[in-house]
Amino acid sequence: MPEYRAPIRDIDFVLKELLNSEEHFASLEGAGDMNVELMDAILDSGAKFAEQVVAPLNQIGDEVGCHFEDGNVTTPPGYKEAFQQYVANGWQGLSVPESDGGLGLPGSVGLTLTEMVGSASWAWSMYSGLAGAPIACLVNGGSEAQKQRFLPKLLTGEWAGAMCLTEAHCGSDVGMLRTKAIKNDDDSYTLTGTKIFISGGEQDITDNIIHAILARVEGAPEGNKGISLFIAPKYLVNDDGSLGEHNNITAGNIEKKMGLKGNATCVMNYDGAKAYLLGEENRGLDIMFKLMNTARIGTAVQGLAGAQSAFQGALSYANERLQMRSLTGTKNPDGPADPIIVHPDVRRMLMTQKAFTEGSRALCYWLAQLVDQTKFGKDEGRVKEAEDLLGLLTPVAKAFCTETGVEVTNLGMQVFGGHGYIHEHGMEQIVRDTRISTVYEGTTGIQALDLIGRKVMGSGGELLRVFTKKIHKYCASHVDTENMVEFTESLASLNKQWGEITMDVGGKAMENADEVGSASVDYAMFSGYVTFAYLWAQMAEVAQQKITEGSDDAFYKAKLATARFYFKRILPRAQVHAVGAGAGADTVMELAADEFAF
Amino acid sequence: MPEYRAPIRDIDFVLKELLNSEEHFASLEGAGDMNVELMDAILDSGAKFAEQVVAPLNQIGDEVGCHFEDGNVTTPPGYKEAFQQYVANGWQGLSVPESDGGLGLPGSVGLTLTEMVGSASWAWSMYSGLAGAPIACLVNGGSEAQKQRFLPKLLTGEWAGAMCLTEAHCGSDVGMLRTKAIKNDDDSYTLTGTKIFISGGEQDITDNIIHAILARVEGAPEGNKGISLFIAPKYLVNDDGSLGEHNNITAGNIEKKMGLKGNATCVMNYDGAKAYLLGEENRGLDIMFKLMNTARIGTAVQGLAGAQSAFQGALSYANERLQMRSLTGTKNPDGPADPIIVHPDVRRMLMTQKAFTEGSRALCYWLAQLVDQTKFGKDEGRVKEAEDLLGLLTPVAKAFCTETGVEVTNLGMQVFGGHGYIHEHGMEQIVRDTRISTVYEGTTGIQALDLIGRKVMGSGGELLRVFTKKIHKYCASHVDTENMVEFTESLASLNKQWGEITMDVGGKAMENADEVGSASVDYAMFSGYVTFAYLWAQMAEVAQQKITEGSDDAFYKAKLATARFYFKRILPRAQVHAVGAGAGADTVMELAADEFAF
Repeated sequence: MPEYRAPIRDIDFVLKELLNSEEHFASLEGAGDMNVELMDAILDSGAKFAEQVVAPLNQIGDEVGCHFEDGNVTTPPGYKEAFQQYVANGWQGLSVPESDGGLGLPGSVGLTLTEMVGSASWAWSMYSGLAGAPIACLVNGGSEAQKQRFLPKLLTGEWAGAMCLTEAHCGSDVGMLRTKAIKNDDDSYTLTGTKIFISGGEQDITDNIIHAILARVEGAPEGNKGISLFIAPKYLVNDDGSLGEHNNITAGNIEKKMGLKGNATCVMNYDGAKAYLLGEENRGLDIMFKLMNTARIGTAVQGLAGAQSAFQGALSYANERLQMRSLTGTKNPDGPADPIIVHPDVRRMLMTQKAFTEGSRALCYWLAQLVDQTKFGKDEGRVKEAEDLLGLLTPVAKAFCTETGVEVTNLGMQVFGGHGYIHEHGMEQIVRDTRISTVYEGTTGIQALDLIGRKVMGSGGELLRVFTKKIHKYCASHVDTENMVEFTESLASLNKQWGEITMDVGGKAMENADEVGSASVDYAMFSGYVTFAYLWAQMAEVAQQKITEGSDDAFYKAKLATARFYFKRILPRAQVHAVGAGAGADTVMELAADEFAF
Repeated sequence: MPEYRAPIRDIDFVLKELLNSEEHFASLEGAGDMNVELMDAILDSGAKFAEQVVAPLNQIGDEVGCHFEDGNVTTPPGYKEAFQQYVANGWQGLSVPESDGGLGLPGSVGLTLTEMVGSASWAWSMYSGLAGAPIACLVNGGSEAQKQRFLPKLLTGEWAGAMCLTEAHCGSDVGMLRTKAIKNDDDSYTLTGTKIFISGGEQDITDNIIHAILARVEGAPEGNKGISLFIAPKYLVNDDGSLGEHNNITAGNIEKKMGLKGNATCVMNYDGAKAYLLGEENRGLDIMFKLMNTARIGTAVQGLAGAQSAFQGALSYANERLQMRSLTGTKNPDGPADPIIVHPDVRRMLMTQKAFTEGSRALCYWLAQLVDQTKFGKDEGRVKEAEDLLGLLTPVAKAFCTETGVEVTNLGMQVFGGHGYIHEHGMEQIVRDTRISTVYEGTTGIQALDLIGRKVMGSGGELLRVFTKKIHKYCASHVDTENMVEFTESLASLNKQWGEITMDVGGKAMENADEVGSASVDYAMFSGYVTFAYLWAQMAEVAQQKITEGSDDAFYKAKLATARFYFKRILPRAQVHAVGAGAGADTVMELAADEFAF
């Protein structure tokens, strides 16, 4: 089992040197008393908590898993106690407005916790993470009375929550949902239906569970236009805040899954449950959309978190495992063989892991700052730019950080050889736990359609131009910086190509709507490689500056070498996706459904 | 759980139309009475057995797994009975020489069973597959007395076997092994040591287990030059063939693994076990090398088998699952949504699965024919060419069919969305079961070093030239075939590039031995994409001919469309690997071991 060590040095680099948190915090207003010292303190205590409290629960959570009996779920040993410690730190309300009882800090700070605690154990972290869902629904759509009834105990962690969207017959196509709401005489509704894949829908960690549920009010229009958002507690809440009777919300079963076994994935039955409407009838998706960027960035972080764990494990093993001699001469003469990190192909795998992990961190943390801007930004232009960039880059981050995260976790196993396949070493668990990240919260295919269809084509290319202009400006501003040309030349060329591919697909899509879908995932992956290139160029720039200033900190040397590795050995993949995006829908649409196999 | 249906039509196509089995069998001598009718009969009964007997054991094998207590292993329910049916069909000795008691049929026929039974359940198939290891060791290195003692009951399936190479401290670096053999006064040796990762090292399926074990005779040279191959039964065998006393061969434990849970992976302790030397002392690896091509092709087939299962499952789900409408207009007006196979990105995943699965089948079956030639070929030139091609292409097949196999299994899960992550649907099991294939029997990295170092550079480029000349000739012969130009043009260009990349890496390697390792996996993947292109071009050629002749069999239309998909959307990946292979060792060697993380 790899021992988790929070990558504080790299997180620090991204937050302070790449993204200049100090200036960022100064550009916000109403975001509590946020400053770099406070950020450091949260980072420090978060790292300790992740390393010492959460990480030890990861393997046992996978081995023991969750158990279901008579509607009750038993979570793995230690999960409840760790949850209580987590919420006692006040972290559940870190990014909740002060007016709603939270600390009101910018979400970019909370994201460091998401990464560290998630690397330590994603399955565990989902219990607190999912409690954030009804909190966000209430903050964004709840009445004052609803907030007062539910928020305080969600914020103290006495209660947790669950997000209830999927039904057996509808996942991506949420418009098909059937869960029914009937208005009562008072302000409540009666809910009937069955939801599946409800993470933490039932558990033994908190006294109550607050469900945020998408349902259709009787008589509402079909499809997306008839979906409302409700909140319903497992136990009804009396006016004095005490718990009342059980609310006909019961778990029918829990799923046996590939991974994340410590987190209970429930089938939830609502058999006439009392529920409260958030916002207006039929406008449930409006509230959901407000949460979507944050939820998707949070899932992108799962790719990062798994990648970080897998990289740490593989690196440590590569330094310990002795096997064969270096082809350039013995490196470990006192041992029976050299550590496998001497072998170039092992290094290729480690460098790939490092490039994707650190690139993901840069992207996720940047996007979190953009979310901060949309909420607290003082400068209107900057807020507008943040909104545009977020619209474009959120699906890119979700798709790309999870797809590459899955690759990195598989490389981690591969470095371990046969031992990677054995449970006790922990590497195969990371693969299994991370694998779902390309699926839930919108599959890679759904992200790709959101990107190319809704965001790029839907804005007439405007959202893309906001970013490509930014990249263009960046490259142009470094045209005379000799040590940056190795990065900015290909970045500028890819940036131009991004626009050309968009025009090409857009043109073809006027004739045939299937062109968009045929190009979508390749387009999203191309976008991801270019976005990472932009971030790696900036990271190289910071490193070059430090080295030029005389720093002999090997951290900067490594950063620069990784940027070069990314540009020379990873970024060429963008061309494959350019070809794929331009290949045309005929390549996939030619066969009838019954002609794929015989 | 996807229902397994043997892809008889495609197997038939590969064997008869692509690889002309009739002519192939006619070119062999001493390979039993092999003919196409016999092949069809084996194919037919193998398909029924795989579908009806083995496939139902796959999921239960994963769920129940193997159990270990007091040195005994209990295999999943039904495993033993299915094994007995398998061996009753005579399949255990299908490819064993008639003089040794087998049927003496060419191995290419047996490979169809490996695929079909392996697709149905790889975990189950390993019990019979691994019994093949001591059989092959005995056939290749055993004395007449040894053969008489052990072979008959291995062939009837009363006994099975295990292949015992790996020790805790040595996997890829087998030269470090410590298991010790001391010569006794008679013709036997006494073995002491511990092996790990021994598939089927202990089980409750057969009365006896024959271990083929690599060990070092006391006083032997260090490294690979001091390794001998032994055979040791779990129960000693009396001269009359009856079982004698227990031979101090015991399982210490079984591993908890990511997948293949139905197959027991044992820690084996040899505490003074009586063992018999095969061949000469210190020449154990010579015998092992004779088995290596077949073993590696067999593992390549695991990639194919997993891919086939995942493709079938995904295709069936894509036709059933209703979710969203086609962007080009409703296709299923009577349903609440269209089947997801209407969506271009779902089709992109299915086409990728189809292209890799059918490409793998073509490659594995071709190599099996080449193995037939090396054993039974009448024409000296053809035998020599087969040996050369096998040397080159076996590591390519092992690396490429398993790497792409893992990709295809993950795509299968992805098509299922969230349901793919749930155990009961069977898709995540295919991912877990197939994942080991890029690791055991030599990791992808080891295959790549074997390819570029031992085979290509080691032959001064000769082995590569045998194949690139063949491709060149193929392309040149179709230069006037109008409907083949879309394939042969890029194939010819990649074929030329293959030589150039080789020269480039070879040149750099004269200066720095790490250049080989740095380029190795990219080189192997490039080789794989070109090799598949050669096979897809030929498959397209067959399909074009049939279509030109007036066939309206949609099978040929699909074959041609898949070839086009491969050339347009998959083959461009070769260029990424060309760049990687040429990027130079500096990209990975720059950092000191302690500079990868801080």
